[in-house]
Amino acid sequence: MKIDIITLFPKMFVGPMNESIMWRAQDKKFLDLNIIDLRQFGITDRRTVDDRPYGGGAGMILRVDVINNALKSINAVKDTTGTKIIVLDAGGEKFNQEKAYEYSKLERLVLICGRYEGIDHRVHENLIDDVISVGAYVLTGGEIPAMVITDAVTRLIPGVIKPESLAEESHTSMDSEYPQYTRPPIYGKLKVPEILLTGNHGEIKRWRDKTK
Amino acid sequence: MKIDIITLFPKMFVGPMNESIMWRAQDKKFLDLNIIDLRQFGITDRRTVDDRPYGGGAGMILRVDVINNALKSINAVKDTTGTKIIVLDAGGEKFNQEKAYEYSKLERLVLICGRYEGIDHRVHENLIDDVISVGAYVLTGGEIPAMVITDAVTRLIPGVIKPESLAEESHTSMDSEYPQYTRPPIYGKLKVPEILLTGNHGEIKRWRDKTK
Repeated sequence: MKIDIITLFPKMFVGPMNESIMWRAQDKKFLDLNIIDLRQFGITDRRTVDDRPYGGGAGMILRVDVINNALKSINAVKDTTGTKIIVLDAGGEKFNQEKAYEYSKLERLVLICGRYEGIDHRVHENLIDDVISVGAYVLTGGEIPAMVITDAVTRLIPGVIKPESLAEESHTSMDSEYPQYTRPPIYGKLKVPEILLTGNHGEIKRWRDKTK
Repeated sequence: MKIDIITLFPKMFVGPMNESIMWRAQDKKFLDLNIIDLRQFGITDRRTVDDRPYGGGAGMILRVDVINNALKSINAVKDTTGTKIIVLDAGGEKFNQEKAYEYSKLERLVLICGRYEGIDHRVHENLIDDVISVGAYVLTGGEIPAMVITDAVTRLIPGVIKPESLAEESHTSMDSEYPQYTRPPIYGKLKVPEILLTGNHGEIKRWRDKTK
């Protein structure tokens, strides 16, 4: 799978890309992660990427021509089978585990990270497939949401993590998880529930089902 | 405000910490961000931090003693006024903009990043204040959720961003945002709605209210 991330802050991805699952997936060729610096598509000598909103208001809006040139440079075209071009926006459709499964089956994701203030709405209407929100909170930009989507989707690509780890989780949420414990069995006053130390798998399963 | 982040992947935070709002807030002394490498509290010569779950199951569980020693090292104690110790977990209480405002008024947040498989449940029961989820999806660890919370909370600390930017957003969600446009007014076939070019502020406000 190929994931392109278009951003004004490419360096934000250096740590996350080189650690943990995103790195291991790249290493094994399951994932081709490509970070595109939007600044290089800025106009005039000053590489301007944004301007003040028409009709007034606070903040700066990313220009439609700048976004379009970035998309053209990677041949990303709306309504292409196997590809989704996505704007990260707190007002978008909620990202969840079902969406993560859906995206993990695609050949390519293109994630456009806006800054908080916004992106020219002609981008939403004409150049992209989905507007996605990772939660009901306001962030300064789409970079951290792009990391959320990359991580959630990448771990579902077959081969990236062990199938038995995926099998235990609910496909739509984590609500089915039961309390987990490991050594030491006694730590000060804190004890592991005795049932878990018995080795009685039938009883353990019943206890886990009950405590979900 | 002080934010401590306890993690097995401290390098994941290098890019996000040095770019964008998290960096600017630290620079201006609004935020003291402290990344704690959990590995240094590992036991035995091998710095072990986790072990297999009691009762069976896939994956490894972070040990209660290791987490407790990390918390002790930064004097983080459950039920301390002005402080919240938080485990990031997909099954936790949903993080939203109200929670971000609540947290932004505290003196200190301590964010414990689990790996996907889990944390010994004695941590949840005895050592922390809140279990928080940033969304209904499964991630490989709590690091990206910790970035979500740090970003959402930091931008609400008075002085970090311009008050007029905060004033325009809804306090609980982004659903009230209207479509925004900037130059160029005409880009190929794509035009900015004419009403926004009129300068008639009454009409523009009505149009924006209608298109929310």
